[in-house]
Amino acid sequence: MLTKSEYVAAQNRAAAMIRESGICITDEEAQKVEVADFGLGRFEVEGAQILTLLATERIAVKIVALFPNQTLPEHWHPRVGEDPGKEETIRVVSGTVRAYVPGDENMSDGFVPAGQEGNYKMRYELILKPGEQITLEPGMKHWFQAAEEGAVMYSFSSVARDVLDGFTNPDIKRVTEIKEA
Amino acid sequence: MLTKSEYVAAQNRAAAMIRESGICITDEEAQKVEVADFGLGRFEVEGAQILTLLATERIAVKIVALFPNQTLPEHWHPRVGEDPGKEETIRVVSGTVRAYVPGDENMSDGFVPAGQEGNYKMRYELILKPGEQITLEPGMKHWFQAAEEGAVMYSFSSVARDVLDGFTNPDIKRVTEIKEA
Repeated sequence: MLTKSEYVAAQNRAAAMIRESGICITDEEAQKVEVADFGLGRFEVEGAQILTLLATERIAVKIVALFPNQTLPEHWHPRVGEDPGKEETIRVVSGTVRAYVPGDENMSDGFVPAGQEGNYKMRYELILKPGEQITLEPGMKHWFQAAEEGAVMYSFSSVARDVLDGFTNPDIKRVTEIKEA
Repeated sequence: MLTKSEYVAAQNRAAAMIRESGICITDEEAQKVEVADFGLGRFEVEGAQILTLLATERIAVKIVALFPNQTLPEHWHPRVGEDPGKEETIRVVSGTVRAYVPGDENMSDGFVPAGQEGNYKMRYELILKPGEQITLEPGMKHWFQAAEEGAVMYSFSSVARDVLDGFTNPDIKRVTEIKEA
């Protein structure tokens, strides 16, 4: 849960990062940045700021802004009916993204948030810089972490059904609650 | 048909425009910019420069750079088997794009390339600036033209099968031929 003022401050900070990365967004879009705390109540440690540019029944385009060292929790995109699950490509625009996917443990630059060892099982680390991208197949577990300078990235995907995503941490609720101050 | 040196010069010019628009592309990507003359042999009038960032069986992301007043010919994305046709969203990054789609004629800023009146039937004009976007449903005829300053835009779409696109001009061949000098 976030207070309204925390939420708006994080929105504004993320919109500024997105614009500094060179992406042009409208003022209306800037106000639609979603601050996701995944129901954990510590969004600057585990969270993400997400702006949906496009979401149809076939494709979705989002901008994800991560604050310095912010971690987007481990999750996957499950099969939904005839959809084998969301296929997602992450392309970095600014900063450095540490991506964790299935593979032999080689984590060196990043870290698992304190006390959350059981909720981050993928330990194969890829370091992605601006202009670099990775495609995540449906069902593939993954999590992301920004390096010290924060990061902005695109998410290009097939249809997004975020509320149906699976999360390793059973405490996660995908929808952020906002507390009136 | 273009000579190799014309092709490379147009590639380099387009890659520079893309980078000036704020989009980070790798040197490898810069060399993959496609210069499309649509087989018409007058690419600076009717043509486009296209960089495919991502193309899977489900989605495609491309950057389209148009030189000043360059026109991307009228076309549509037809049904292919069970695919109802490519759904495409154009989002402008820099410059101004004149988009022509079905609707009552209101063309004022743009123009049909000289002598090509029969090959550009959509005359409903939308003026798109950076941060603005339009979604083209499958099968919808459309063409684009950059204003005087040129333009860079994203194309976000379902699976792309460019060689199966339909073109109003029957002389068009989608694949550019390169003539060795």
